[in-house]
Amino acid sequence: MIMMTDLPDLAAIQEAHERIRPFVHRTPVMTSATLDDLCEAEIFFKCENLQRVGAFKYRGATNAVQLLDDATAARGVATHSSGNHAQALALAAQTRGIPAYVVMPRTAPAVKKAAVAGYGAEIVPCEPTLRAREDTLAQVVTETGAHFVHPYDDARVIAGQGTAVVELLEDAGPLDAVITPVGGGGLLSGTAIAAAALAPGTRVLAAEPAGADDAARSLAGGKLLPSVNPDTICDGLLTSLSPRTFAAIRAHVAAILTVSDDAVRHAMQLVMERMKLVVEPSAVVGLAALVTRRQEIAGRRIGVIFSGGNVDLRQMPW
Amino acid sequence: MIMMTDLPDLAAIQEAHERIRPFVHRTPVMTSATLDDLCEAEIFFKCENLQRVGAFKYRGATNAVQLLDDATAARGVATHSSGNHAQALALAAQTRGIPAYVVMPRTAPAVKKAAVAGYGAEIVPCEPTLRAREDTLAQVVTETGAHFVHPYDDARVIAGQGTAVVELLEDAGPLDAVITPVGGGGLLSGTAIAAAALAPGTRVLAAEPAGADDAARSLAGGKLLPSVNPDTICDGLLTSLSPRTFAAIRAHVAAILTVSDDAVRHAMQLVMERMKLVVEPSAVVGLAALVTRRQEIAGRRIGVIFSGGNVDLRQMPW
Repeated sequence: MIMMTDLPDLAAIQEAHERIRPFVHRTPVMTSATLDDLCEAEIFFKCENLQRVGAFKYRGATNAVQLLDDATAARGVATHSSGNHAQALALAAQTRGIPAYVVMPRTAPAVKKAAVAGYGAEIVPCEPTLRAREDTLAQVVTETGAHFVHPYDDARVIAGQGTAVVELLEDAGPLDAVITPVGGGGLLSGTAIAAAALAPGTRVLAAEPAGADDAARSLAGGKLLPSVNPDTICDGLLTSLSPRTFAAIRAHVAAILTVSDDAVRHAMQLVMERMKLVVEPSAVVGLAALVTRRQEIAGRRIGVIFSGGNVDLRQMPW
Repeated sequence: MIMMTDLPDLAAIQEAHERIRPFVHRTPVMTSATLDDLCEAEIFFKCENLQRVGAFKYRGATNAVQLLDDATAARGVATHSSGNHAQALALAAQTRGIPAYVVMPRTAPAVKKAAVAGYGAEIVPCEPTLRAREDTLAQVVTETGAHFVHPYDDARVIAGQGTAVVELLEDAGPLDAVITPVGGGGLLSGTAIAAAALAPGTRVLAAEPAGADDAARSLAGGKLLPSVNPDTICDGLLTSLSPRTFAAIRAHVAAILTVSDDAVRHAMQLVMERMKLVVEPSAVVGLAALVTRRQEIAGRRIGVIFSGGNVDLRQMPW
């Protein structure tokens, strides 16, 4: 039986890695002489913006979908999300040949609805409130028998997200630290659990926008302190930790650094201009944290996970 | 003695490849399931937008600079360019530890001047006319003794540009066709010479904007027909062929396809949205040509050279 606070261990992450291998890209680890010079450090970028659907979310969604027994899978999967998890679950379901139902607010951008529909999912519109979202999801699950896959508060999803750092450590070699974005904490939890077991000498850090700093406040305060009215251009990091992800983070994360939206814009421009990679604002909070704390990282070998690249090119944040 | 119409042969391109290897990136060859589906073909993208200075131009500039004897090199190198060749020659000179003088029109964007100056070159301003540019360059060469490295009308430069397709053929395997952008024809000449010798079964194609279609008209007319007042968003493809590059193109290029600026914008968006790569307009004319001629390439294996990624993120062309 799966408990609400279950977390995967290293074995579960390694099993997830084998399970999802046929479906996900092994994304490249890139370096940049310009950014190394700027930070006076050696930085290794795990490019999950080049992952399928443009985000690491495809790892966790694929692991969850592939783990379902055939009878459960046949009824399909469901989630509520207007972000990268929606696309990820849609494609993971399409790949397994099962239905996907995605509850999205009526106000979600047309481009996001089109992307989810493009992967064959059925979009179920709801009013743009948390209550309407949860009620609509419950109704979908009741009516269809679909299996709910949460964007981050799910041990199978966390195990899938933890596979990115396994590859990063294999490709980059020993690292002094690794840094990921933190929103709901799925990527950070998986990264922290895997890194603690595989590379105990590697410090696990996270970064988040100052306008959605629940993880930093929660870690400092020793208890969950969710964001109220988060405000940031990092649209993938608006969510708050769950008890499950907070437990993993308390156990394994050394520090959570906050960054301003201006630092995020600057880091996005650096990556697009110097590395020629398209990254979304949420993806570069880690780099932004390093650039603004250069003096603390001089001479270190640091892994950075670029979480995604889904940005509206017609509305760049500058 | 180097003749004005000399062209490199395969051996010269292979020697260039060895010569520049310590200095250039071996850029990745990427694929995209989305673009393969769209074109119903297998497309292999040689990502020279990820090359140093963000463009293939660094290959040719490095080959020319590294070939100089010490006495000549010590006096430095010079060119006229406000584009990627200027940055490429500046970095190639800086890498060898010699001066570089770059003649640029006073009207060139500040960001381009800053990039060239950032690689340690001396910028020599001139009025924005062809005559002023040539006169100023001649004066610089007379005063400094610097060695002129033309952006494309130079056998050493062409040999360097030809090294990209050598790597593409090694990494992608047999190809039915390879397609490059064509402006002055340096990349296309080098590609055509190398591919004809290494992979005679691979058709060499080129693409250019309809608003700067001198290469297509010249190939069709059997004589050089330079562009008059070219007009396109592809700022790297405004120049016309030289007798030297035209000779290589007549000998080895199967067809030159023209594309509209709208098709270029669409292809840029496809690459940035789907492949998460930053590309400049000039870089995607080849893909634009394929997308608009889908029915002709179904089932084929095609190599596309993305020539560069230097685009002003504050002024995207849409």
